[in-house]
Amino acid sequence: MTRPREVKVALLGATGAVGQRYINMLPRHPYLHLEALMGGESAGKKYGEAVHWLFPDPIDPEMAGTVVKRAKPESAKGCDIVFSALPSEVAAEVETKFAEAGFTVVSEASAHRMDADVPLMIPEINAEHLALLESQKRKRGWKGAIATTPNCTGTGLSMVLKPLIDQFGAKRAIVTTMQALSGAGFPGVPSLSIQENVIPYIKNEEEKVAAEAKKILGTLSNGVIKPSPIAMGISCNRVAVIDGHMETLYADLSQEVTPRAAEKSLETFRGEPQRLKLPTAPDHPIIVRKEDDRPQPRLDRLAGSVPGMSVVVGRVRNGIDGRSIQLTLLSHNTIRGAAGTAILTAELMESEGYLGT
Amino acid sequence: MTRPREVKVALLGATGAVGQRYINMLPRHPYLHLEALMGGESAGKKYGEAVHWLFPDPIDPEMAGTVVKRAKPESAKGCDIVFSALPSEVAAEVETKFAEAGFTVVSEASAHRMDADVPLMIPEINAEHLALLESQKRKRGWKGAIATTPNCTGTGLSMVLKPLIDQFGAKRAIVTTMQALSGAGFPGVPSLSIQENVIPYIKNEEEKVAAEAKKILGTLSNGVIKPSPIAMGISCNRVAVIDGHMETLYADLSQEVTPRAAEKSLETFRGEPQRLKLPTAPDHPIIVRKEDDRPQPRLDRLAGSVPGMSVVVGRVRNGIDGRSIQLTLLSHNTIRGAAGTAILTAELMESEGYLGT
Amino acid sequence: MTRPREVKVALLGATGAVGQRYINMLPRHPYLHLEALMGGESAGKKYGEAVHWLFPDPIDPEMAGTVVKRAKPESAKGCDIVFSALPSEVAAEVETKFAEAGFTVVSEASAHRMDADVPLMIPEINAEHLALLESQKRKRGWKGAIATTPNCTGTGLSMVLKPLIDQFGAKRAIVTTMQALSGAGFPGVPSLSIQENVIPYIKNEEEKVAAEAKKILGTLSNGVIKPSPIAMGISCNRVAVIDGHMETLYADLSQEVTPRAAEKSLETFRGEPQRLKLPTAPDHPIIVRKEDDRPQPRLDRLAGSVPGMSVVVGRVRNGIDGRSIQLTLLSHNTIRGAAGTAILTAELMESEGYLGT
Amino acid sequence: MTRPREVKVALLGATGAVGQRYINMLPRHPYLHLEALMGGESAGKKYGEAVHWLFPDPIDPEMAGTVVKRAKPESAKGCDIVFSALPSEVAAEVETKFAEAGFTVVSEASAHRMDADVPLMIPEINAEHLALLESQKRKRGWKGAIATTPNCTGTGLSMVLKPLIDQFGAKRAIVTTMQALSGAGFPGVPSLSIQENVIPYIKNEEEKVAAEAKKILGTLSNGVIKPSPIAMGISCNRVAVIDGHMETLYADLSQEVTPRAAEKSLETFRGEPQRLKLPTAPDHPIIVRKEDDRPQPRLDRLAGSVPGMSVVVGRVRNGIDGRSIQLTLLSHNTIRGAAGTAILTAELMESEGYLGT
Repeated sequence: MTRPREVKVALLGATGAVGQRYINMLPRHPYLHLEALMGGESAGKKYGEAVHWLFPDPIDPEMAGTVVKRAKPESAKGCDIVFSALPSEVAAEVETKFAEAGFTVVSEASAHRMDADVPLMIPEINAEHLALLESQKRKRGWKGAIATTPNCTGTGLSMVLKPLIDQFGAKRAIVTTMQALSGAGFPGVPSLSIQENVIPYIKNEEEKVAAEAKKILGTLSNGVIKPSPIAMGISCNRVAVIDGHMETLYADLSQEVTPRAAEKSLETFRGEPQRLKLPTAPDHPIIVRKEDDRPQPRLDRLAGSVPGMSVVVGRVRNGIDGRSIQLTLLSHNTIRGAAGTAILTAELMESEGYLGT
Repeated sequence: MTRPREVKVALLGATGAVGQRYINMLPRHPYLHLEALMGGESAGKKYGEAVHWLFPDPIDPEMAGTVVKRAKPESAKGCDIVFSALPSEVAAEVETKFAEAGFTVVSEASAHRMDADVPLMIPEINAEHLALLESQKRKRGWKGAIATTPNCTGTGLSMVLKPLIDQFGAKRAIVTTMQALSGAGFPGVPSLSIQENVIPYIKNEEEKVAAEAKKILGTLSNGVIKPSPIAMGISCNRVAVIDGHMETLYADLSQEVTPRAAEKSLETFRGEPQRLKLPTAPDHPIIVRKEDDRPQPRLDRLAGSVPGMSVVVGRVRNGIDGRSIQLTLLSHNTIRGAAGTAILTAELMESEGYLGT
Repeated sequence: MTRPREVKVALLGATGAVGQRYINMLPRHPYLHLEALMGGESAGKKYGEAVHWLFPDPIDPEMAGTVVKRAKPESAKGCDIVFSALPSEVAAEVETKFAEAGFTVVSEASAHRMDADVPLMIPEINAEHLALLESQKRKRGWKGAIATTPNCTGTGLSMVLKPLIDQFGAKRAIVTTMQALSGAGFPGVPSLSIQENVIPYIKNEEEKVAAEAKKILGTLSNGVIKPSPIAMGISCNRVAVIDGHMETLYADLSQEVTPRAAEKSLETFRGEPQRLKLPTAPDHPIIVRKEDDRPQPRLDRLAGSVPGMSVVVGRVRNGIDGRSIQLTLLSHNTIRGAAGTAILTAELMESEGYLGT
Repeated sequence: MTRPREVKVALLGATGAVGQRYINMLPRHPYLHLEALMGGESAGKKYGEAVHWLFPDPIDPEMAGTVVKRAKPESAKGCDIVFSALPSEVAAEVETKFAEAGFTVVSEASAHRMDADVPLMIPEINAEHLALLESQKRKRGWKGAIATTPNCTGTGLSMVLKPLIDQFGAKRAIVTTMQALSGAGFPGVPSLSIQENVIPYIKNEEEKVAAEAKKILGTLSNGVIKPSPIAMGISCNRVAVIDGHMETLYADLSQEVTPRAAEKSLETFRGEPQRLKLPTAPDHPIIVRKEDDRPQPRLDRLAGSVPGMSVVVGRVRNGIDGRSIQLTLLSHNTIRGAAGTAILTAELMESEGYLGT
């Protein structure tokens, strides 16, 4: 951590399922300090009274007593960064207003993710994409800017693909997901729909995962991101698990590889956050388990030095031939797949001087 | 149905989870009549007292009052066919004894499935493989013979691959399964292991599914089965669902195909059991659902004209390109994937004269 | 069944979770014939397209093609009876309109249940309460009338209390429920709330169960129902089960009783529907299981001659002394606890001449 | 904490589900130091290799590398106390051998719980019962002694009854439990038995809970425990939840009480461990929640200053009249209901000088 000054934080969508994870994580943060909570219907109420709190851990008492403000730039006055946990329907307009007003917004919403001049960040993979922020400001004439983080399902997948592409030339990925209930927010999936069942469909998810992964894994040159050429076939399923997205990956590679070499590539993978020792960066972005029957959501979703920030991989083995790898991966969908990556992005921005003086 | 004579049936392993499904299905059968129940520790007791019955439907009263016999050939005297629902560890030896003693055995156990002279039957796919029984008898010097049915996971998959291979030249299949608890028998999976969890591993399952599918889909020539050349990459997972194995399939084909053409190929698929109008043959071996979010285990596992005997397919769409197809399939693991296919095999054998006068 | 004329039926709230059960049950009924489906937002659409169908069994094709009408008396023209599966908020007003317009309404909604002149029917218990309908018409100046059926939780409980009161003078009942998800309708309970959890509260449920049971078990004299003096203490819980409300009952009695005598009292209990052999009347309104570990929702909720219409009781034993009985009961909440009892009430009304010519 | 000397600990039954909780809790303990792990079939292996570890948290590395010893007194040489997490079948004999050999045994097994001279400890309730240890030694001629802790279900219940008895004269308790899967150990309840189900029976549990509670709540005079006269009616159920036993309690009292007074009595309850500030003693043995819908197992089982050691109570209300109280309570069955109370008992013994110099 380079500059431990206090960074003032505002949060859009504070009472939603996604927003709650920030309230759960940030009070323990060494320098990000939540100053303003903003919401829609909850505006004017104390956070602790407005929220349908989803976690076993109690709400931080200071947060519980904070009055939620209306979602407008004046509410965030004095803040260095605005996290957006808004639903995508409203995110497009509201986030734009904050950026116009001079705020740096880090958004989990899908609204701006695929905009050509908006970085879609997983700091371990594409720290250099932050450079888009400058051209974005110029082009849009904004004083502020918007950075985004990806869909929960694509996050763990992209992290695993990164070293496989770099080291073995992964060129095709066939993926099947078994996704947790919290990925659908609250109230989300009705219990009558998922009890004693699996649902083989999540609206728009497969398209999002593929498109976003190609952008995240793409290369920046001349201010433009050239998407990764990797081809993807994705099948998304919902299973009755609270947290933790499981995914099977079958990857075709450009060269022969042993499972051992693939495991080594995955477990030695490090990114800019590890080099910078950012507070929310796990020691091991990818943890490799050697047992036959891991990862498992209930046992492994909070593994690692920063709980929920590591992707856990297991069952690494060849596919049909030596030029293919099969594995199972698990990623905590509301930490690494949402608030955690957004917080890590903010830390990276602060560390690299994107958050102003 | 060609010959409605009464066929006398004996059952090995009657009290186990697999055996119970026969007791659940056979009392309603038009001509297969259960005459002898055989077991291990349960021998000497009334079936209704010896069994830990797993179904909501009550045990057929006649069966409940039947005394379980010891698992030896004399116990099946006078029977035309012996179903084996034995655990694989004991199946190898016991089934051999019955075949030596002159019985035709139809076994769900894995013990003999991969023997070169033993047919591995899904009657819709490979009715002609029954011809192996004659050479088996000659070669082994047995008066009886053994036929087998496949692993529960491979059954639905093979049925879906058959028309895709025949019509579009499917050459590679990447499969991820989400398998039901009943596939592990009783007591099977501990609740503490699967509650709020997914287990990404089922011992030996992936190897079995691949090898068996290649045999089932193979061609018989000169008394030898030449395995299908299809290449398979399989990832097996256990989920918290009682019955019904879900599987995603990504298939590479030899030619361009539209989802519509693939759906038509699947839903018009018929086999020998449909032509012979066998009593346990469903009108549609494969049912295609057009909704986005089907099949689902709880809603679709008993679909079709013979509940549990149809494979339900949905989400048919191209993969990375027009030479690939993705879909989701659901197959009832203890009906189509076990007792149902064995009963259908017995019906085919009776219809084609394999069960003697 | 005394008069097998066809009775024409209209249904209010046809697409809701409660209404669907009628569409599931009535097409097989010997003389109740669904003529008109009515709904709110679904009006104008074909039923099969408007409904989010919750059952594995497919929708009856005739029903699926029926166009849903608006919820007003003209839509039910020519019908002999109107079932109401409306949410309670709208039931009060809409049902009144239908009764004013001359229709006999049988309602599952709570709106009118506790009105002094409205019978609250469980036909096995209080067939004679139907006599209230005449005074209701007189008093209200209606051509039609409203009969109601109780809350799902109170139905099974009241049926078990009836013989215990009559034979042993049950005077106090301490009850704890473990209620199924379908009792909350659809979408109802969010999966994130109930997964790996128990919820110890169901809004207004405890009050309703106690008040309704006292009315159901009350005696009619001089046109007024005198509530049963039984005292009740009730704790309602939600558990992760789709269908089937479990309840433990601890009853203080006026006299000594053995478990055997209590079991006999329960299993020999019969009511007017059994004497009249009404089509939806189960042979045994109460089934007594002797095993230690029954009833269980998944195994027993559809027990009996009319699936879902029998209450299943087990674990009958004394409490602290011989003047108390403890037991566990299970009742299918959307059949016996909802549509089934309403249909049985309609059959009773038809049989006793309440449905006009 | 009076004497922070290091206390050397041995553990019987280290690899079982109960034993694992000690390995999970003790490495963080300020002065109890695990010196010897003992097991049956696991003897001779490293703990990390012998155990089927059930928790998400990894095994303490030192413990994982410790070689499991045979379950005999020599293996515990030098230890000040022996925790027994043995199955009851073997506990009777093995624990006796350790006590004869001079060890102080604190056992979770039921074998010796009801022996007249063996204390059955919940330190908040009956710290003074430890005095039985002296007479036990004299009477049995042992150098060591056995203390026990109660069944998991009775622990939370007894803690709630204690202040209700002391302050309001609770004289009858009607209890229904909804118990977690971990209470049955591992492999324990088969998933096929509990998925989409409730099981209304746990063998011997109801008898144990009643008898043990009367002993725990009893008074010691002249070296003999006089059981509490409270009368109990208990119905035990298993539900699909991993940890946390829920119970509804209906208590008849000797005097009028308001819910508010009952809540105050519960939340101000303190015992000897709180006065002694023992390390595993929670600040509040009983936490009272005021919301309608609490406690809930998933949200509240780890509440309090020592996670899992507080009983959480909610829904406090009158029963049929002002001389009765109804409430719902939740207690973590493998912490407060097992290892946690045993550890707290050891701390009490150390603090009061029962563990020798």
